[in-house]
Amino acid sequence: MDDTKRTELEELGEFGLIERISNNFSNKQPSTILGIGDDAAIIDTGDAYMVISTDLLTEGIHFDLAYFPLKHLGYKAVAVNVSDIAAMNAIPTQITVSIAVSNRFSLQAIDEFYAGVKAACAHYAIDLVGGDTSSSAAGVFVSVTAIGTVAKDLVTRRSGAKNKDIICATGDLGGAYMGMQVLAREKQVFMANPDMQPQLEAYEYVVGRQLKPEARMDIIHELRELNIVPTSMIDISDGLASELLHLSRQSGLGMRVFEEQLPIDNQTYESAVEFKLDPVTCVLNGGEDYELLFTIGQQDYEKLKKHADIHFIGYVEKEDDRPGLVTKSGNWVPLQAQGWSHFKQ
Amino acid sequence: MDDTKRTELEELGEFGLIERISNNFSNKQPSTILGIGDDAAIIDTGDAYMVISTDLLTEGIHFDLAYFPLKHLGYKAVAVNVSDIAAMNAIPTQITVSIAVSNRFSLQAIDEFYAGVKAACAHYAIDLVGGDTSSSAAGVFVSVTAIGTVAKDLVTRRSGAKNKDIICATGDLGGAYMGMQVLAREKQVFMANPDMQPQLEAYEYVVGRQLKPEARMDIIHELRELNIVPTSMIDISDGLASELLHLSRQSGLGMRVFEEQLPIDNQTYESAVEFKLDPVTCVLNGGEDYELLFTIGQQDYEKLKKHADIHFIGYVEKEDDRPGLVTKSGNWVPLQAQGWSHFKQ
Repeated sequence: MDDTKRTELEELGEFGLIERISNNFSNKQPSTILGIGDDAAIIDTGDAYMVISTDLLTEGIHFDLAYFPLKHLGYKAVAVNVSDIAAMNAIPTQITVSIAVSNRFSLQAIDEFYAGVKAACAHYAIDLVGGDTSSSAAGVFVSVTAIGTVAKDLVTRRSGAKNKDIICATGDLGGAYMGMQVLAREKQVFMANPDMQPQLEAYEYVVGRQLKPEARMDIIHELRELNIVPTSMIDISDGLASELLHLSRQSGLGMRVFEEQLPIDNQTYESAVEFKLDPVTCVLNGGEDYELLFTIGQQDYEKLKKHADIHFIGYVEKEDDRPGLVTKSGNWVPLQAQGWSHFKQ
Repeated sequence: MDDTKRTELEELGEFGLIERISNNFSNKQPSTILGIGDDAAIIDTGDAYMVISTDLLTEGIHFDLAYFPLKHLGYKAVAVNVSDIAAMNAIPTQITVSIAVSNRFSLQAIDEFYAGVKAACAHYAIDLVGGDTSSSAAGVFVSVTAIGTVAKDLVTRRSGAKNKDIICATGDLGGAYMGMQVLAREKQVFMANPDMQPQLEAYEYVVGRQLKPEARMDIIHELRELNIVPTSMIDISDGLASELLHLSRQSGLGMRVFEEQLPIDNQTYESAVEFKLDPVTCVLNGGEDYELLFTIGQQDYEKLKKHADIHFIGYVEKEDDRPGLVTKSGNWVPLQAQGWSHFKQ
């Protein structure tokens, strides 16, 4: 290494780093249908496709054990990977879970973590088939790999959106981000005065969105029953704006979403106002909601229009290939990626 | 958690912990042929089996960046996972690589790591299809998941050894452990006096065994060409004694190996003597050689007996189900598991 050419990771950001890595690799195996760059890789197993996705969760970056119970961490580590499998329109089947902890952890703490893993495996009907356990010099690290299966004609990539497709988002957005704000504030209060008990009752929903996210497999099953194959799909882990940019860039088309259509829960809205945050910014850039963002052809709209938990937030357009938001006042503003910025201080 | 029942992880050890976890999970998916407890899980994909294995490498436990170049770390992280795929008699096809590093790492350091990953992918003809990048509060963590494919009648488990089978080990053993001893000593010398240059010339082979291990895919391909399917197989990552105990326990049979048949390189032997270590102990408990340990039926012996790199170290027996070593003086001593003890101080 030549230190005179040192480049800080924060200059590049996660997406720049992933692009740099993937540009340097090419696929040789005939079974590799899709490599780096989607929610999961696609591997041809003959009759069907297998999809595979992996996530690394690090203490102090992705979670704070001061307010994140280990059982919830185990559940969430599985759920966020299942969410990636869902985003390929696939059904999860197996998972591996690795964990590194320092000596300060007891066996009972590990049992708590795996109790969460087990509950998630039961909920999503998947098998824990492997993993690794290690000690770490400092901090907890969790790595999960999920695999799933999908018929070849049902697999959904980020790149398949078509002009005039309708953009759909499930559930509501921004809640997990507000939950983290609440938990971080209560931690500060507690650290200043350990006799203070956390005040979480009024924030139960948003805190639950942070601590107990669910992958939207229910939506995947419903779409199958309705015979709908999304034209493109991604899970909302980094924030709606970031995911719209992914779909837009990988499909080569613009995306126009409407502020008044963005789904936000009342508690998310009210806690954002209390924290002096713009609720729309929380929805656009909050992240960690693990809802699904997908596009459908207009012919499928009738079948979904009465669905209580699917929101039609905009449409795909080829006139302008930048994704933008139409505000309540009718202005068009370009969407900015926030996404992941762990390397930034 | 009830702290009155606190149990330290070191009381249980890695194998106890894995057994505790796996006993608490059961497989429900019809495609799960084999879950936790072998070198890789086995998943039925219809025409063939897919095998999947994962490893977590943590700084300060599995590697010391003071003497482990990042490019070598990238290569080794891939190789040790390919070794697990080899141990199932499978051909590796794809890999995911995740890494967490602190802000002190530059982009150039990450590039070095991925240059090693790329070299290993090229060498083993596998595709990098995914992964995750994250920052860590402290330390480097690498998680790799490898997948491979194998015809259903060729897959090799730990549990298939039969009475009177011949026990085979590839390559030579104990070298990687001695390499680590040499590197650790040179680090101490360097820290005491930074003007001292490391003296590694005389230890090139054993240091290479530690820094540049290879998965024995060459052996897997040769066995196929010879139409030999091992009855059981495991890769030698934790040490020969530990792996023999796995094959013995999972096959329900004893294993008798002979000290005079154990393969050891001259440099390993001589450096062990220099370090006042018993060379046989290094072979039995050293670990990290990533050679293959397997059993074959006696009818296959003729085909392999002249192989320069496969050593016939003993045989499977049902008379005594404990694995044991017959020393040069003719004594029988039971083999002890050392294996992994990261949680021990």
